[in-house]
Amino acid sequence: MSGPEPMRGALAPVITPFTEGGAQPDADRLIDHCRWLIEGDVGLAVFGTNSEGTSLSVSEKEDLLDALVGAGLPPARMMPGTGHCAVTDTIRITRKAVGLGCGGVLMLPPFYYPTVSDEGLFRFVSSVIDGVGDDRLRIYLYHIPPMAKVGWSLELIERLIDAYPETVVGLKDSSGDWDHTQELLRRFPGWGTFCGNEHNLLEAMGLGAAGCISATCNVNGAAIARLIRTAEEPEAEALQEWIRVIRRIIEGGAMIPALKSLIARHRADPAWRTLRPPLVELSEEDETALYDALDAVDFEMHVLECA
Amino acid sequence: MSGPEPMRGALAPVITPFTEGGAQPDADRLIDHCRWLIEGDVGLAVFGTNSEGTSLSVSEKEDLLDALVGAGLPPARMMPGTGHCAVTDTIRITRKAVGLGCGGVLMLPPFYYPTVSDEGLFRFVSSVIDGVGDDRLRIYLYHIPPMAKVGWSLELIERLIDAYPETVVGLKDSSGDWDHTQELLRRFPGWGTFCGNEHNLLEAMGLGAAGCISATCNVNGAAIARLIRTAEEPEAEALQEWIRVIRRIIEGGAMIPALKSLIARHRADPAWRTLRPPLVELSEEDETALYDALDAVDFEMHVLECA
Repeated sequence: MSGPEPMRGALAPVITPFTEGGAQPDADRLIDHCRWLIEGDVGLAVFGTNSEGTSLSVSEKEDLLDALVGAGLPPARMMPGTGHCAVTDTIRITRKAVGLGCGGVLMLPPFYYPTVSDEGLFRFVSSVIDGVGDDRLRIYLYHIPPMAKVGWSLELIERLIDAYPETVVGLKDSSGDWDHTQELLRRFPGWGTFCGNEHNLLEAMGLGAAGCISATCNVNGAAIARLIRTAEEPEAEALQEWIRVIRRIIEGGAMIPALKSLIARHRADPAWRTLRPPLVELSEEDETALYDALDAVDFEMHVLECA
Repeated sequence: MSGPEPMRGALAPVITPFTEGGAQPDADRLIDHCRWLIEGDVGLAVFGTNSEGTSLSVSEKEDLLDALVGAGLPPARMMPGTGHCAVTDTIRITRKAVGLGCGGVLMLPPFYYPTVSDEGLFRFVSSVIDGVGDDRLRIYLYHIPPMAKVGWSLELIERLIDAYPETVVGLKDSSGDWDHTQELLRRFPGWGTFCGNEHNLLEAMGLGAAGCISATCNVNGAAIARLIRTAEEPEAEALQEWIRVIRRIIEGGAMIPALKSLIARHRADPAWRTLRPPLVELSEEDETALYDALDAVDFEMHVLECA
């Protein structure tokens, strides 16, 4: 069987920079940030929830993927979000990602209709697989009912794995429910289950998780990647605890503008604060509180020797 | 001020036919159905919730609009759904609709992120209006929190009307909350508020509603249009009651496949039953039950003399 190896480790749902007012995605700034992530051993789950991925058109995504690969970033470390409400959009951007050699795609279910049957979702995935028609395709299901309403049930996952064992190879669990992540790890051993956050990452790695795809990997990814690499070493507990402290501070507010504020400060580049409507930047007050809280625990972006 | 007149009356969120498996929208069947609706004095809110509108790509919508207008259907009676999660998609299809002379567009808010501020939604609408840049644009806000999660608050509507009095000209209220519809009618007299269903249409017309944009207009639209035209006549009460009976039967099950089943039967054309994933057709049992329930009240599609 040809095609990419299973993806592992820490991936960031890469924050998307925009030009003023959110008019255009800013490919150059995105490339800079992606290079910095890769240096920290963090993979690129571009076009995720924290990337404002659903706020991008298919052609904007295509152009960004071309720019990233053209800049020499490694497609094998890319897991772009390709799930749209329209199956034809999902096919088009998924095909593009596969053609560029992406290690996988992270697929939201269609997320408009709130009550969708497993049969309907199965047909959706089948249509995508048939429509893409490329055995290099590796689908990671994106399970995030708090945003998408619709989720991938355990029964449906089982059916998809049975039908497409080489193609439906994993899942990101952003249910926010640690019990659910454990259930996935128990039920599908050896399958590519990623945690959606790093709160219980160490324990998840012990249970066989593939890694972690987490918003905060945009700013603390090197440490999270290190935790995954060193999960069996004695200092892992302390690193897990430190990572959890940072996560709690950042997730206390509005995640996406918070990440943009942190990157803007780190790079001394205010343009990073720009969001695309309907999202809005942090208030000055909230931004100051965020900076202060992280300064109080001596957080610096991209510090590897933190345990 | 140039541009279309305010839209009024009954509009159908026009059911979209597809080729086998949902692969392609079927423009010829759509044109046939739209002609039949227009003959019954029913306007064309194509690409709505019941049109599987969010299951269509922007280019599929563009092609369908071209086909409809090319077939001679009146753009002044068209209110296509143009709200996508990506503002650039919304701008592109809205510009297309305006360019073709559509009477208005029905705009969903971006519907992925569940907690979006009024400021963010205001910026989204502003970006669309600026991006389209055509003073013929007439926006009807699509308020449907049961699907979109995000809604248009009364305060935001007020702000939008203040900022864009010639452009933000109405709303479809699919909250499913009659109290909310009445509040809209009280608070924005003379504005283009459409009921999202026909349960209380007669009363709504008395309170100044612009009309009704309702799923069941696909099969019972001529009667609903007639009720709007004759709201002040003595037989209106009986017609309202009859229309309500039909609505209750159809909405008892899965609305979109039910409408497709009814059109398939009416046209003796099984291809009309096809849905695009993730939606699925009615079971044979549910379809029989639907047909039986409507037969029991002597319902026939497109009967004008029904009161």
